[in-house]
Amino acid sequence: MNIKEKISERTVEVEAIITGYLPEESGYQKTVIEAMNYSFLAGGKRLRPMLMQETYRLFGGCGRIVEPFMAAIEMIHTYSLIHDDLPALDNDDYRRGRKTTHVVYGEAMGILAGDGLLNLAYETVLNALEQEQENPRAAEALRILARGAGIYGMLGGQVADVEAEGETIDQDKLDFIYDRKTGALIESSMLIGAVLAGADDSQKDMIARAAVDVGLAFQIQDDILDVAGDQAVIGKPVGSDEKNQKTTYVTLRGLEAASEDVERLSKRAIDVLRQLPVQNDFLIELLKYLIRREK
Amino acid sequence: MNIKEKISERTVEVEAIITGYLPEESGYQKTVIEAMNYSFLAGGKRLRPMLMQETYRLFGGCGRIVEPFMAAIEMIHTYSLIHDDLPALDNDDYRRGRKTTHVVYGEAMGILAGDGLLNLAYETVLNALEQEQENPRAAEALRILARGAGIYGMLGGQVADVEAEGETIDQDKLDFIYDRKTGALIESSMLIGAVLAGADDSQKDMIARAAVDVGLAFQIQDDILDVAGDQAVIGKPVGSDEKNQKTTYVTLRGLEAASEDVERLSKRAIDVLRQLPVQNDFLIELLKYLIRREK
Repeated sequence: MNIKEKISERTVEVEAIITGYLPEESGYQKTVIEAMNYSFLAGGKRLRPMLMQETYRLFGGCGRIVEPFMAAIEMIHTYSLIHDDLPALDNDDYRRGRKTTHVVYGEAMGILAGDGLLNLAYETVLNALEQEQENPRAAEALRILARGAGIYGMLGGQVADVEAEGETIDQDKLDFIYDRKTGALIESSMLIGAVLAGADDSQKDMIARAAVDVGLAFQIQDDILDVAGDQAVIGKPVGSDEKNQKTTYVTLRGLEAASEDVERLSKRAIDVLRQLPVQNDFLIELLKYLIRREK
Repeated sequence: MNIKEKISERTVEVEAIITGYLPEESGYQKTVIEAMNYSFLAGGKRLRPMLMQETYRLFGGCGRIVEPFMAAIEMIHTYSLIHDDLPALDNDDYRRGRKTTHVVYGEAMGILAGDGLLNLAYETVLNALEQEQENPRAAEALRILARGAGIYGMLGGQVADVEAEGETIDQDKLDFIYDRKTGALIESSMLIGAVLAGADDSQKDMIARAAVDVGLAFQIQDDILDVAGDQAVIGKPVGSDEKNQKTTYVTLRGLEAASEDVERLSKRAIDVLRQLPVQNDFLIELLKYLIRREK
């Protein structure tokens, strides 16, 4: 089986886990639940929960405590996409070839569906932990989840990104945006996996460093695909960054330097992972594939 | 000192506690933090954190564990107001005599500021709990917070309320909306106070029952003020429900029956509290005042 097939297989497995946490579409709040589930079920590789579970396995984790966290990180990712797509933000009508949430359910319901998913992420983990007697690893994982999603994490990056539109920004600000907007949830995913499996402090540091490089490489690759990719494969119009007058890694550094940076960051991340006393070959293959995904 | 003065004094005390949890306005995400703080600092009686702290005191609570929860409930309340005021929802330009968040900071920042506050509520509590060694009461309180805010709590009520606009709805649906939209956070506030102070199950039940009545009475009184109130005092235009073609308790039951229901619910809530083996006279005075607040 090649890596693409292996990832597809794992996507199916991850999806089976995380969709088990979706709420039933009933009651007077039915519409918002439908909108939440519609967005959550829009597909994708389920990269974040997959990275979380693979990092958990890397450190020998074999329980189910990671599962509600997998659902939660995907809910947070989904909420951020719904709100990013709103008319007041990126104003996107399509994502992954499907109509975006606010196009189908209206803008008010789009806002509330995003809110609902963000809150449901916490509810999901907290309800699952009720069964666990006090578990300090789970408490630490929950703090990482919250920090990664908020103003010092993903949301901070979204804000800087919104403000940067139509402006020329420098490398420092672009790094901030990339590190937060895309990087924060990838870092949280891998770190939560490590923490739940009982990784020690130095191992957690290594995972965090590798994850930061992975997140950055992933986002730079996204910029590269935006100028050099194929709409049918990447699922959104090529050249949308240029249309939106966005400063990207490619506009700042050029296509060639950007590609070299992806290579360098990717190599550094994998070198760090290779230094760990434990190994998960699929995790490394997965990271390589994700970073260097083709046009 | 009359009850109004006492409440003002307590508002100042509560405000000093909760504003201590606001984030510093710095970094590339500065604008969203300014927007969050602008909304949070827009005033109000700080009813929810005050009810939480008074219920905590009722059951003999005297520590500081309640404080991050007080900040968190006010952050959640504030986020819900920001998103409710957005053009896609209620489209309100003013609240408490000040311009609403999206009017000052733009719609994108309004959406993100709401998101930021919701997430910060969890970050605030989780960070504060890091100091506490595992505390099962705090874990229970956090679950109550999350449930009260989400699709089975406040958000569920908002959704049904949005869908009800321009429609005639029946008593059952209206009760659902009131119980969730206004009631859920009031119930969470009082219940979290009770839980953190170590109330037993039957006491928690009594608090929950009283809080449901208080929340409903509070919302009905809001409807009454909307037809019979004074704009300068209530801080929004009189008759806005009628303008928005909203079904309210008053349109369904009439002004007189609505007033009687406020009395009945209020009396029932206070009777329940009077049956507890512990008493907090200020809490009862506070509830009476809030429910029967004048035009």
